[in-house]
Amino acid sequence: MKGNAGRTGMVPVKTVERLMLYRNQLEDIRAQDKTFIFSSEIAALVGNTPTQVRRDLMVVGCAGGSRNGYCIDDLLKAIRSLLEPAEGITMAIAGVGNLGRALLGYFSLLHPQFKIAGAFDNDPNKVRRTISGFRIFHISEIAGVLALQPAQVGVITVPADQAQKAADAFISSGVRGLVNFASTHLRAPSGIWIDNVQITSTLEKVAYFSRMMQMGDKS
Amino acid sequence: MKGNAGRTGMVPVKTVERLMLYRNQLEDIRAQDKTFIFSSEIAALVGNTPTQVRRDLMVVGCAGGSRNGYCIDDLLKAIRSLLEPAEGITMAIAGVGNLGRALLGYFSLLHPQFKIAGAFDNDPNKVRRTISGFRIFHISEIAGVLALQPAQVGVITVPADQAQKAADAFISSGVRGLVNFASTHLRAPSGIWIDNVQITSTLEKVAYFSRMMQMGDKS
Repeated sequence: MKGNAGRTGMVPVKTVERLMLYRNQLEDIRAQDKTFIFSSEIAALVGNTPTQVRRDLMVVGCAGGSRNGYCIDDLLKAIRSLLEPAEGITMAIAGVGNLGRALLGYFSLLHPQFKIAGAFDNDPNKVRRTISGFRIFHISEIAGVLALQPAQVGVITVPADQAQKAADAFISSGVRGLVNFASTHLRAPSGIWIDNVQITSTLEKVAYFSRMMQMGDKS
Repeated sequence: MKGNAGRTGMVPVKTVERLMLYRNQLEDIRAQDKTFIFSSEIAALVGNTPTQVRRDLMVVGCAGGSRNGYCIDDLLKAIRSLLEPAEGITMAIAGVGNLGRALLGYFSLLHPQFKIAGAFDNDPNKVRRTISGFRIFHISEIAGVLALQPAQVGVITVPADQAQKAADAFISSGVRGLVNFASTHLRAPSGIWIDNVQITSTLEKVAYFSRMMQMGDKS
């Protein structure tokens, strides 16, 4: 991850992550027809302290009443205004293999706030075809396509040895955030936000701890 | 994440994550025919301190020499003995949609240390078919299949409303670690390790920070 944490009103990453967690929990609770909630209840659901919850919610401008706690609808509205901009989130994706396809299918159906500005691949059998409802362009066309349809976030699902090239093309086309699924470290100038989703590492990590748990079972 | 951190010799999760990072960097450096490395060089590559690097490497039994530093091959061997068991890692997967397929294809080709004990889906059009080289079984057959072919890690890529059921079936079949791609919170008894890969949340987080970066560009 890169960035410049001191910029205008940027909420710290850990706070953003906790706000997402609160939102997901609040959506579940709202579906059960509950209207108000106390910080201590939210804290219990996500496993942190009421003080932390109140501090985080202050960031989105919410102060609960001492009598009823927080109005859940108000909380959801406030958190969503931070995380889900009304104009949507524009994404571009490099790599339309199985993983790229999974992401395209998923977001076009379930998450209308994500708008696909362009989908790119190197494979001549995919270029100019329509996959999961999107026309596929060649990787070399990133600059041209994103000049017409700007993207905020670039998603990289190409093989590791092509990832840096795709990242460079995205960045020079105005993309300021990258989600990198390739198992390689990406270089980027400051002012670019990178999140790495290392599925292999996650599996290895879970495997390590599951082995330890099994040894615990046996001892 | 759940667990019991105090168990027999379990390495803390942050240490495991850093060891993975070191390994990936060391593999790249090894490919460039370098033989020895100092903790300060590793620290610079991954953005932490030489003291932290030395402390982490002690966990896998490595102490560098003050003259040449660490032998890279020895380091790689030591870290791999923790993360990549010689007998491989056995996994089962519930959900063979695009994401499940991406994982199956990826691991069968690129990562022979991951062995697929079983792949499961609810869709009658997939059950009994071979997808990415694996025979697909029905979700209801998890117990039967894993009794013959035990799995350490269960990967969940089914829709959110089916995730808990798949998790329960995995756990009662002896799985001790879960990687959850479904956007729902899983309940599990203690002694089960769960890692959540929330792709939507990651995209929203990157989108938030990329918007902040763009505002910074303009100000």
